[in-house]
Amino acid sequence: MTAERAAGAAGDPERIRVAAGGAASDAWIGEGILSRAADFVRSPSGRFLLFASRSAREALAPLRRALDGRLALDRELDDSEAGKTLEAAAALAEEALAAGLRRDDAFVAAGGGVATDLVGFAAAIALRGVVWNAVPTTTAGMADAAIGGKTGVNLPLGKNLLGAFHPPAAILVDPLALATLPDRDYRAGLVEACKAAWIADAALADALERDTDAVLAREPAALKALLAGAIRVKARIVSSDPRDAGERQLLNFGHTLGHAVEAAGGFAALRHGEAVAWGIAAALEISIRRAGLAESSARRIRRVLSRLGPFPEPVRDVTVLEPIIRRDKKTSAAGLSSVLLPEIGAARVDAGVPIEDWLDAAAIMKLS
Amino acid sequence: MTAERAAGAAGDPERIRVAAGGAASDAWIGEGILSRAADFVRSPSGRFLLFASRSAREALAPLRRALDGRLALDRELDDSEAGKTLEAAAALAEEALAAGLRRDDAFVAAGGGVATDLVGFAAAIALRGVVWNAVPTTTAGMADAAIGGKTGVNLPLGKNLLGAFHPPAAILVDPLALATLPDRDYRAGLVEACKAAWIADAALADALERDTDAVLAREPAALKALLAGAIRVKARIVSSDPRDAGERQLLNFGHTLGHAVEAAGGFAALRHGEAVAWGIAAALEISIRRAGLAESSARRIRRVLSRLGPFPEPVRDVTVLEPIIRRDKKTSAAGLSSVLLPEIGAARVDAGVPIEDWLDAAAIMKLS
Repeated sequence: MTAERAAGAAGDPERIRVAAGGAASDAWIGEGILSRAADFVRSPSGRFLLFASRSAREALAPLRRALDGRLALDRELDDSEAGKTLEAAAALAEEALAAGLRRDDAFVAAGGGVATDLVGFAAAIALRGVVWNAVPTTTAGMADAAIGGKTGVNLPLGKNLLGAFHPPAAILVDPLALATLPDRDYRAGLVEACKAAWIADAALADALERDTDAVLAREPAALKALLAGAIRVKARIVSSDPRDAGERQLLNFGHTLGHAVEAAGGFAALRHGEAVAWGIAAALEISIRRAGLAESSARRIRRVLSRLGPFPEPVRDVTVLEPIIRRDKKTSAAGLSSVLLPEIGAARVDAGVPIEDWLDAAAIMKLS
Repeated sequence: MTAERAAGAAGDPERIRVAAGGAASDAWIGEGILSRAADFVRSPSGRFLLFASRSAREALAPLRRALDGRLALDRELDDSEAGKTLEAAAALAEEALAAGLRRDDAFVAAGGGVATDLVGFAAAIALRGVVWNAVPTTTAGMADAAIGGKTGVNLPLGKNLLGAFHPPAAILVDPLALATLPDRDYRAGLVEACKAAWIADAALADALERDTDAVLAREPAALKALLAGAIRVKARIVSSDPRDAGERQLLNFGHTLGHAVEAAGGFAALRHGEAVAWGIAAALEISIRRAGLAESSARRIRRVLSRLGPFPEPVRDVTVLEPIIRRDKKTSAAGLSSVLLPEIGAARVDAGVPIEDWLDAAAIMKLS
């Protein structure tokens, strides 16, 4: 099993602190760290309740062995966006309570972004909040979803409309856990890691272009460098804006049109990361026109995105996209508050991009 | 209408600050304050969404007039313990979202303890948390439930098992709002106010004995003094222990056996405050034996409780009470962590009271 091979060979993991409004998370990044999970997960009582994605069972074998004897509950769940409901979160909390959950016990959420969002939210509301730990098993979860303290569930009215800011005590990021992730999920999730480089870390963006092949080959060292860089960017931004009132908006680079094409595909045609890739392509067009981004810089970004792809074609139809964009909560009379990129590594917010500019960009955006 | 009469004659309200882990609430106490609510409730956007108990409609007429033109939603709810469910909280949040809720809008929860617990919890999870304001309309809500930041809902497994610490920005306490409260609820709720005096404020306990008649006659000045005193006690305790890890336990005086007789009656035979009165009577017996409480002090407390009553007889059957007490989450091998009263105004926690002592006390407890 690939996830086992290097478990003994792990070096010291890297720690990145994510401060978020009083609470703080420690993200630990290292090859084989799941096989030493007991040294890094936290629980006031020493007891854990594990909620783990069924599809990551193989990747999580080292975690289960490491926590053997400390689990008051070991429960699998389906890591699907359709299952990210309030009812599902309540069911998890009820199972934990039926298993004897006390206020000093801790949850472990293991899986993709859905698992960490859902289980983290259950931890936020069970007994008015218990400690939890995140073990992301997807590139999207490691680079983005599990970092920053946002937890939540979807409503028929929209995604993530109910939730809580409830940061995990520890986040364990093991590149080896990605060994069995399906290729499409692996590549789509990398878009969020690249996004972090482009908005705030020019050196990481350079390294990314150099190491794209190694990252795509899932070489642990290259992967670890990219993930650690992305987490460092997100940790810095989140720590300066834990409640999502200002700078945290920068993380939405690519998400304005990305969300629209994702919604237009019924949240099924495109993976979230694929939609964000298209959203970044559109943001590049607007950044060239409104923020002075050099065409050569845009080309560098497109080249990386094209190597992560090919991604499925999105809906570009104005009559479909326009009503979705108009409902965006960042719309005001001045236009749409949008993240633009004057240069690689230095994104900024433009409070009033006309909706028409986004629709024009959707028509011409490209990934190569 | 009584609630109207003195609305113009109100003096300056008293402010009591409740700090709770980063967040802080301002409790404002004053006759007629609801008719000037717009000066005290808080909303970053200036817009409010009102969720108000149907049974308090008359008491809340001044509030509705005061917020006229600022309400994006005015929705009545049933203030019943059976309705304090996760589904109900989600339904409130969905209505707010359908009405266009934005992150800078604020909820107003008006009614008894169920309304403030439920609507406060909906505010905690909608869009990962919006500001809310509490307008308690019962003695129990004013003295206890709306103060301290605890919000939550019940599960079939037990009460308040899901929830959040999410303090209201402002709490408006208007003695005039009690004018139409049914007598049984009025008296039962006063037990929590008296409890605050007995655990931590000997002078307030003295005043209470002197002014019992005036309080029972709902004279605003006497009522305001008792409620402000009780809120001050709770504010002090909560501020020193926002997450309920230590001193806050003192507020559970009377709640160990109180909870048991409340549960034994199916949460229907006794009001919560009535059950707490019996629980205090039992705690007095144990305090005499284990904490040196003078019989004369116990008699003073019983005399006040008997004047608030008569309260319905509770279940005293050991075979019914024992399994309920054994499930109490404060039970350990050493016994039951319990609040005892060595003297009036100075409660303390005894970590190991044998369950048998509670069962014995249940057999002999009395309210006169």
